[in-house]
Amino acid sequence: MKIGIYGYGNLGRGVELCASQNSDVEVVGVFTRRDPKKVKTALNTPVFAADNAAEFKEKIDVMILCGGSATDLPKLTPMLAKDFSVVDSFDTHPKIPDHFSAVDEAAKCGNNLALISAGWDPGMFSLNRIYSEAILPNGNTYTFWGKGVSQGHSDAVRRIDGVLDARQYTIPKDEALDLVRSGISTTLTTRDKHLRECFVVAEEGADLKRIEQEIKTMPDYFSDYDTVVHFISQEEMNKNHNELPHGGFVIRSGKSGLSDCHNHTIEYKLTLDSNPEFTAGVLIAAARAVYKMRARGQTGCITLFDVSPADLSPKSAEQLRKELL
Amino acid sequence: MKIGIYGYGNLGRGVELCASQNSDVEVVGVFTRRDPKKVKTALNTPVFAADNAAEFKEKIDVMILCGGSATDLPKLTPMLAKDFSVVDSFDTHPKIPDHFSAVDEAAKCGNNLALISAGWDPGMFSLNRIYSEAILPNGNTYTFWGKGVSQGHSDAVRRIDGVLDARQYTIPKDEALDLVRSGISTTLTTRDKHLRECFVVAEEGADLKRIEQEIKTMPDYFSDYDTVVHFISQEEMNKNHNELPHGGFVIRSGKSGLSDCHNHTIEYKLTLDSNPEFTAGVLIAAARAVYKMRARGQTGCITLFDVSPADLSPKSAEQLRKELL
Repeated sequence: MKIGIYGYGNLGRGVELCASQNSDVEVVGVFTRRDPKKVKTALNTPVFAADNAAEFKEKIDVMILCGGSATDLPKLTPMLAKDFSVVDSFDTHPKIPDHFSAVDEAAKCGNNLALISAGWDPGMFSLNRIYSEAILPNGNTYTFWGKGVSQGHSDAVRRIDGVLDARQYTIPKDEALDLVRSGISTTLTTRDKHLRECFVVAEEGADLKRIEQEIKTMPDYFSDYDTVVHFISQEEMNKNHNELPHGGFVIRSGKSGLSDCHNHTIEYKLTLDSNPEFTAGVLIAAARAVYKMRARGQTGCITLFDVSPADLSPKSAEQLRKELL
Repeated sequence: MKIGIYGYGNLGRGVELCASQNSDVEVVGVFTRRDPKKVKTALNTPVFAADNAAEFKEKIDVMILCGGSATDLPKLTPMLAKDFSVVDSFDTHPKIPDHFSAVDEAAKCGNNLALISAGWDPGMFSLNRIYSEAILPNGNTYTFWGKGVSQGHSDAVRRIDGVLDARQYTIPKDEALDLVRSGISTTLTTRDKHLRECFVVAEEGADLKRIEQEIKTMPDYFSDYDTVVHFISQEEMNKNHNELPHGGFVIRSGKSGLSDCHNHTIEYKLTLDSNPEFTAGVLIAAARAVYKMRARGQTGCITLFDVSPADLSPKSAEQLRKELL
């Protein structure tokens, strides 16, 4: 399978590194909107100008999009789906239906297959939500994020005027986790479950009160949470906040039996040293499925909900049944 | 979707109860090899003789098989797959490839679709093994069972001459769990990971040494484990061992990044008050997928590896993307 990597930030670099762990994957090139000569890849993968991507139409089976969800992907995924089968990690949950429609139209128009919102949430966490609900219909599902750095939220803070650098940690609240694990049915708001903690480097003389207010009231990203903002120096940022760990939990608790006498708890937990490199692993597996499904004639937009697990794996059906079933 | 329940032990009863939680599922009847008049169902579902099942060929969309893996399912699933689309929970791992072949042939011959080995292991645990390996190729997967009662192992002990009743608990070893969670790559045998503890009620005057020896050396079930056997009274059995809890863990730990500098851990944990009722939930969701996939023309034998998550859910694609992605 020949892939292209569109965008070369943390995620694009993660895809390049993860591809090298998969013997069935070949990276044709990295496509950047920066000057290609100035982009140095981790494994010496060739770098091309994003504007020339369409020239690689026949040489790439699946283009993996590694841009941000706030402004890049809503434009890039539909645009590229006209020329390529694509995979993205679009993660602004409330805007997924609109993004799906736009990508579906473009992919059908280009006779390509596009898989959106692959990563860990949306992605692996979504899979755990759908499976758990299907097998345990009488119950509640709770999703917790962290502790870890949210890249989307950090990016959003960095786009505020006067902000030089920012790191946002999402932290699950222990009391909420304990309550959910106990099997007690409860309604928790996102605010009950998490704290958002921001470390921000501001321009000299910037209005810190205004920046803090803009963060705390930002829709989709912060307005539904308790948010704490710390202003720190760039030196402290580089020293103490230079990794991108993340993780979280999907917990479903449900009842069965006469008079709901039995309780069941399904807990899925991720502990990730590097969010972009783990997300990259999901994107590569998703690209493999897109490659197989397109070869069987499928076009349009899909998500991981529409993909059989076997299509994500490089192993044969016989091998899977023997080794993993 | 109209289902039949073939066999009415703990699992069949679990399917009957779980079906009532799914508004898209109607139970046509329970089929038993016992005298139908003597079988009392939990929700007054009609009971028919197993020998007459074929008469219901046109009235049932999917037959859910609720027999044991040791002797029942290897015969029953291929036999019934000639007349019905079927789902079973065949769980003797080393014999899955043979069972698959036999069922595949029968289902194709009857123009039906059969899904085998649905439950939690094989089943939900298998799904976590395949997903985790696909997205984190450079790592190791570890499966732990328990603490809980294994019905298959309890049944196997009960079939030994001189045994009146038996309950087998599988117990994961804490030191092995801690080792795996730490991210250290290690090779653990099944013996390193678990203890098997049996509580046995023997016939008066039975040769206890011989029974203990037969348990400990039983291939597939006990020979690869450390097994402890306790002989107890029927009274004690009824008082202290009358529930069927179970659970366990699938943990994958893997590396990514330059020089494998980042570690990631994926942990899936089940804590189940009732093994058969939880397994029943998986069987019903699998039956739903079989119903949808058969309607699209698919025949032969499949497993959960071949099923897209969306097919397990009663929700529409739009609803799934909006609510669960």
